[in-house]
Amino acid sequence: MTTGFFGDIKPIQYEGPDSASPLAYRFYNKDELVLGQRMEDHLRFAVAYWHSFAWEGGDPFGGQTFDRPWFGPTMEHAKLKADVAFEMFSLLGTPYYCFHDADVRPEGDSFAESKDRLDEIVDIFAEKQAQSGVKLLWGTANMFSNRRWMGGAATNPDPDVFAYAAATVKACLDATMKLGGENYVLWGGREGYETLLNTDLKQERLQAGRFLSMVVNYKKKIGFKGTILIEPKPQEPTKHQYDYDVATVYGFLKDFGLENEVKVNIEQGHAILAGHSFEHELALAGSLGILGSIDMNRNDYQSGWDTDQFPNNVPEMALAYYHILQAGGLKTGGTNFDAKVRRQSLDPQDLLIAHIGGMDACARGLKAAARMIEDKALSGPLAERYAGWKTAEGEAMLSGKRTLEEVAERVVKERIQPQPKSGRQELLENIVNRYV
Amino acid sequence: MTTGFFGDIKPIQYEGPDSASPLAYRFYNKDELVLGQRMEDHLRFAVAYWHSFAWEGGDPFGGQTFDRPWFGPTMEHAKLKADVAFEMFSLLGTPYYCFHDADVRPEGDSFAESKDRLDEIVDIFAEKQAQSGVKLLWGTANMFSNRRWMGGAATNPDPDVFAYAAATVKACLDATMKLGGENYVLWGGREGYETLLNTDLKQERLQAGRFLSMVVNYKKKIGFKGTILIEPKPQEPTKHQYDYDVATVYGFLKDFGLENEVKVNIEQGHAILAGHSFEHELALAGSLGILGSIDMNRNDYQSGWDTDQFPNNVPEMALAYYHILQAGGLKTGGTNFDAKVRRQSLDPQDLLIAHIGGMDACARGLKAAARMIEDKALSGPLAERYAGWKTAEGEAMLSGKRTLEEVAERVVKERIQPQPKSGRQELLENIVNRYV
Amino acid sequence: MTTGFFGDIKPIQYEGPDSASPLAYRFYNKDELVLGQRMEDHLRFAVAYWHSFAWEGGDPFGGQTFDRPWFGPTMEHAKLKADVAFEMFSLLGTPYYCFHDADVRPEGDSFAESKDRLDEIVDIFAEKQAQSGVKLLWGTANMFSNRRWMGGAATNPDPDVFAYAAATVKACLDATMKLGGENYVLWGGREGYETLLNTDLKQERLQAGRFLSMVVNYKKKIGFKGTILIEPKPQEPTKHQYDYDVATVYGFLKDFGLENEVKVNIEQGHAILAGHSFEHELALAGSLGILGSIDMNRNDYQSGWDTDQFPNNVPEMALAYYHILQAGGLKTGGTNFDAKVRRQSLDPQDLLIAHIGGMDACARGLKAAARMIEDKALSGPLAERYAGWKTAEGEAMLSGKRTLEEVAERVVKERIQPQPKSGRQELLENIVNRYV
Amino acid sequence: MTTGFFGDIKPIQYEGPDSASPLAYRFYNKDELVLGQRMEDHLRFAVAYWHSFAWEGGDPFGGQTFDRPWFGPTMEHAKLKADVAFEMFSLLGTPYYCFHDADVRPEGDSFAESKDRLDEIVDIFAEKQAQSGVKLLWGTANMFSNRRWMGGAATNPDPDVFAYAAATVKACLDATMKLGGENYVLWGGREGYETLLNTDLKQERLQAGRFLSMVVNYKKKIGFKGTILIEPKPQEPTKHQYDYDVATVYGFLKDFGLENEVKVNIEQGHAILAGHSFEHELALAGSLGILGSIDMNRNDYQSGWDTDQFPNNVPEMALAYYHILQAGGLKTGGTNFDAKVRRQSLDPQDLLIAHIGGMDACARGLKAAARMIEDKALSGPLAERYAGWKTAEGEAMLSGKRTLEEVAERVVKERIQPQPKSGRQELLENIVNRYV
Repeated sequence: MTTGFFGDIKPIQYEGPDSASPLAYRFYNKDELVLGQRMEDHLRFAVAYWHSFAWEGGDPFGGQTFDRPWFGPTMEHAKLKADVAFEMFSLLGTPYYCFHDADVRPEGDSFAESKDRLDEIVDIFAEKQAQSGVKLLWGTANMFSNRRWMGGAATNPDPDVFAYAAATVKACLDATMKLGGENYVLWGGREGYETLLNTDLKQERLQAGRFLSMVVNYKKKIGFKGTILIEPKPQEPTKHQYDYDVATVYGFLKDFGLENEVKVNIEQGHAILAGHSFEHELALAGSLGILGSIDMNRNDYQSGWDTDQFPNNVPEMALAYYHILQAGGLKTGGTNFDAKVRRQSLDPQDLLIAHIGGMDACARGLKAAARMIEDKALSGPLAERYAGWKTAEGEAMLSGKRTLEEVAERVVKERIQPQPKSGRQELLENIVNRYV
Repeated sequence: MTTGFFGDIKPIQYEGPDSASPLAYRFYNKDELVLGQRMEDHLRFAVAYWHSFAWEGGDPFGGQTFDRPWFGPTMEHAKLKADVAFEMFSLLGTPYYCFHDADVRPEGDSFAESKDRLDEIVDIFAEKQAQSGVKLLWGTANMFSNRRWMGGAATNPDPDVFAYAAATVKACLDATMKLGGENYVLWGGREGYETLLNTDLKQERLQAGRFLSMVVNYKKKIGFKGTILIEPKPQEPTKHQYDYDVATVYGFLKDFGLENEVKVNIEQGHAILAGHSFEHELALAGSLGILGSIDMNRNDYQSGWDTDQFPNNVPEMALAYYHILQAGGLKTGGTNFDAKVRRQSLDPQDLLIAHIGGMDACARGLKAAARMIEDKALSGPLAERYAGWKTAEGEAMLSGKRTLEEVAERVVKERIQPQPKSGRQELLENIVNRYV
Repeated sequence: MTTGFFGDIKPIQYEGPDSASPLAYRFYNKDELVLGQRMEDHLRFAVAYWHSFAWEGGDPFGGQTFDRPWFGPTMEHAKLKADVAFEMFSLLGTPYYCFHDADVRPEGDSFAESKDRLDEIVDIFAEKQAQSGVKLLWGTANMFSNRRWMGGAATNPDPDVFAYAAATVKACLDATMKLGGENYVLWGGREGYETLLNTDLKQERLQAGRFLSMVVNYKKKIGFKGTILIEPKPQEPTKHQYDYDVATVYGFLKDFGLENEVKVNIEQGHAILAGHSFEHELALAGSLGILGSIDMNRNDYQSGWDTDQFPNNVPEMALAYYHILQAGGLKTGGTNFDAKVRRQSLDPQDLLIAHIGGMDACARGLKAAARMIEDKALSGPLAERYAGWKTAEGEAMLSGKRTLEEVAERVVKERIQPQPKSGRQELLENIVNRYV
Repeated sequence: MTTGFFGDIKPIQYEGPDSASPLAYRFYNKDELVLGQRMEDHLRFAVAYWHSFAWEGGDPFGGQTFDRPWFGPTMEHAKLKADVAFEMFSLLGTPYYCFHDADVRPEGDSFAESKDRLDEIVDIFAEKQAQSGVKLLWGTANMFSNRRWMGGAATNPDPDVFAYAAATVKACLDATMKLGGENYVLWGGREGYETLLNTDLKQERLQAGRFLSMVVNYKKKIGFKGTILIEPKPQEPTKHQYDYDVATVYGFLKDFGLENEVKVNIEQGHAILAGHSFEHELALAGSLGILGSIDMNRNDYQSGWDTDQFPNNVPEMALAYYHILQAGGLKTGGTNFDAKVRRQSLDPQDLLIAHIGGMDACARGLKAAARMIEDKALSGPLAERYAGWKTAEGEAMLSGKRTLEEVAERVVKERIQPQPKSGRQELLENIVNRYV
């Protein structure tokens, strides 16, 4: 028995590239092998509870546009929401979902009441997971919507807010563990500042470091096997967020000795807002060994805020999955659609269509990336370009066996005059276009 | 006997705020005490050799506009350039200057010839320094203009280029030491990439780390007492530079164990291109203990490239110097005008006027900042805002004496409900406006 | 008898530049003469009803932060809001205010009910205006918050929405006229598109042109003496707004023959989002004869969305008022603070302090601009720079008395070789700094 | 007999999508019919003389990287350049090319000498055109590189520069006509300002209007049948260019009564720099009836300057050609590759490979666009969405048969309550992905 929200739509099937049905997969074929592994296991798709079920369609200039039967303040609303959510997961066949505490239960009058409500929902989720086979990719705490967080959570000037944040993360991490979640994410929604005039950067950074250390210690204590992830974002809602981008998070982790404990959850839209391409952030995290998971979406290139659109540009996604595969794949991470239908997309089936399009675009990108890897389309020319570093002298310099003055002396003695070689960028771009 | 380039202009004097002379200081009064120290010693102004003497007025759509008698390929041209440069330093009364090797001598046919020419100029500079009392704030190597650097210097795929870069930096560091330079700067003009398709990020990062370690070791060996500085920039000329911003450089330094050996030289325009305010970068570097020196200029807020204009917005500069003073001042660093007159500013006196305006704006900003500090205009409210962290429980949490579960338990037990307090941003902004 | 919302704060007085009181004017001295006119009559300050009284402190990642007794769904709430609003106008001594229909009354269940409620509030406003002497600078319709406008108002694909918009503007224009409003503003909050895929640009442009023509005709019919104003904005909430910037609006007005009927209301923040400086938009509108009024605020230069902060950078405001004065001043327009306190600025007096700071910054900018005009500080050098166009041949070419071939022939015959002259940008920047 | 510059490469052939040859077309099949027309006649490809033959590889931080035998100051160099250029046109099979005067001949010591040299080259070009069958898409004048233009050409404060510009355009238009050019382009490289402080916007706008009117009159007089095109660009080299974007140019044309005489040449990269998508500019120009031609390239989305890369994102190009086809196609215009190989792409064949990749991406986009049109994939849903405007009342309102008050009355009488319908953006995005 279903809620009927999606009418009589049947579970979405793979129909192949020629299908013109809006309610079928054209590229996502979960059992198809790619580089010897099932597509489902590569992509590890997750639906984001907040965008599809909690968001009401508002933006800074307008309020609710969606008309959903589960919008309301009671636990009954929350349960109906859960029913519809799991129906959608099953219709789509996505193996995972993700949630914040605030997405799934109404806020209580006290911390204890909020927590009790969360626990009640967690029990319902556990049952639904068991019935449907859908799993939890990650849980997280919403520490940005309620006014108590307006000046930050872990980085708040008020230590009581820090304490409240600690209690909140503990509750959410407990819930995540109970549900078998494979990761736990921290996104610092209000961890940043509006103005330096009222901000003590050094103090707030210490608070953030302490907080994360406490979380990592607790994770170990309770035996949570998942990965702790930080999600970088440069700005919005604050003028300046502390977890600006992958490089910034890396320096922070190094500073607090956490670079082997915590990885990053990289969002396409956040990369763009930070002035990076998505593949830059992925490649950098891969090279630093901290690539954890991805929030897949798309930021409008002409908008300066977080648009959280569903991804659809296949050439870009091919490069994204290329760098993910090069870094060894998503491991405990996954492809979470941190994306929302536009506020004008009012119909229930818009929710399905948006995810179908996103999943197909990812699948198509993945397949293109895999073929590039199989063909060494890019890695071959790359190895050739850096071949000089495999010579004895190259290795000696790189490994620290040469001093500056030794190298300088050799330049003079051997009259070294380096000759530029073509970087062949256009050729490589054309090669990529053969795969997408 | 002078070159006559600046006609009969006399050394620029301080005439006070009411002066309407374009060739007088209205705020920069070098011996005036600010927070108990001479303004000259706070600001430590330097003229950038490249913009004022080597740049010919070109931009991506047009060539030379300036008509200078020293433009030409010979050492005689280079000597005339040096004559005019030191004349300008003396007219302005700036205590320092900065240079790249390529600014001061024509490139030779081999490394050895280039180095010989550099050495010849260094001897001339040494003499001029002794005569004029002008000092060298920092030296640096131009490893971006010549085509050999087109794919990077330390991060080049070709180890011969790495070697050539090592030899080049050694030569420039030797020259800097000989001239009593107080810092040595590395700006990674081509250390970055045009496309990830032909780039091995991990390999290039290792090269950069090795290179910097070699430089630091050499510095110690020769007993150079100055500070080694990295200058962050997010992009341009490359699509993506490795030394993106202060946070990125910090993570890089930590990774190679160099965070106590190397500091940053922060440029206003580079901060803006990276999506940060200048004061953000200054405050962050201050809080991390790596604030070294500044490149003072101004980036047009509506342009997406490095405009290198002379600074003129006093309220912004007051905040910049506020954070510098809060971090303990510039120490071995200084205020280098990495700024160029517009390519339409053809007259010799435009060079003087531009520097005068910039120096006055800095001086005015410094004085405003000093008064804010004296009055605790911002630090007073700040201390009040974070006062909770000075309580016993605040200190216990911050110092690591509390676990996540202990804090969570206290939240429930004490029924903690944090109450938001006003951030008073507008009040603080109004307070700043009382000083500028 | 007051509501007590602002406690016992007395009307804000001018105390001069040396005042350290947060609740006093340091520069805004309404009766002081500037270029022979009272400051109040130059600046014509208005408070925006929406930001100070209707906005609850929400942003895309969080909800209400403000705790105001008038937040609620009834007409009683609306009346209390009006009481507090007029108290604030009187405390500040601002001569004007501005409002949307949706700011001042709760939405009804039908158009008729909404209009009745508006009419009821208009009667209250009329009375309060008479008592306080505060006047209406402009009225406008909120055609972006309610979900009916999600796809546009005048440019909606559904003609019923167009009709509803027409009825709404008529009601608001009637209200504005009844209250003696001096202008009527149209801001196309949803007049734009989210995606071209579902948009007929040509059709929607025609709708917009027709709608504006209908409004202009109605204005004439009822004898409204105020100015009709369009407010440009490039994007947000939509991906692309039709009234992108001043130049775009001008082309639109020309196309529909309305360039003499309608002017522009220029907002600082919207100029920045469009990639222009504020002074560019002001100077352009002035040169086209369509400068109507200004929405004064400040957009964060590092944020890509509409931050609507209170202005505080005096040098920038001096240039803004310089171009306004050069264009003949604000006439029926005014300086409306389309600005909101930050969502962390919770206290009632933050509302006052924010306006005080903004008014002082404007006053200081105005005075600097006026002195530049009196001294011909910029206009003198400008006239000199263009002097060639006052020669007989310059005038002949500009007035159309020469053909291309005649001019070309003269170039050859007279062997014309134009010699560049310095643009003296740095000198002019230094001159401006003498005034701010 | 050839110059040998490209070695023994044979003319590039169409080999179909499965070809892995870097020197073959995979999609561009010039005689293949698309919507009943040959691909060559749809796309009308042109090579830009400047980027491929005149640019030396410099950028703001570095000089020449390319090593070409034709770089040099003499007419012999210019002739060798022409030989190689026409060889490349023939190898690629592009039907058109475009040039500036400064690309093809060294500047002379006087206007007359420069013109003589241009005439000499034009004769050579005429012969080569006849031999090869390659045609001139458009000619133009470089009025931005030489220092005489540093303050603008038509908008220069010095009327002598205006005169020199007039003579220059006359010469280039004469050359274009002689060579059978199908359009003449004006790009206002220096028509803009660096600072408003030294700029008289109104005066310069008048100059620009007068100049364009003179050009149009001359065109008519000599019977030039091609189209006069303005190329919008928002900024760079100047801080603010007058021909900012399509909407701005439209307003300018309307102002001077030239909207039926002049069209626009839209460049992808310029659209991006102006904050618009490329398809926005195309759709807008189409809807205004001023779409003339396109400069096809790609601007890096994370760079704030004009990167002029070769296009390669097929989904984006499909939308671009979709709007071109919807506007009736390119007519006298064409697809000019205003794109340059990266400065590290040193090899002769990089020039070919870059064009091949761009042409293939365009061809693939065109074919996708054509199939969307054939299937009414987008136009069908669009017609449905706006169907309300085809009703009697919709048409009455749009055509001006209803007044504001009549419409308002009907809203009340009929109790109109518009009901939002889904905008179905994600569905449409998925549909597009079926075609690309």
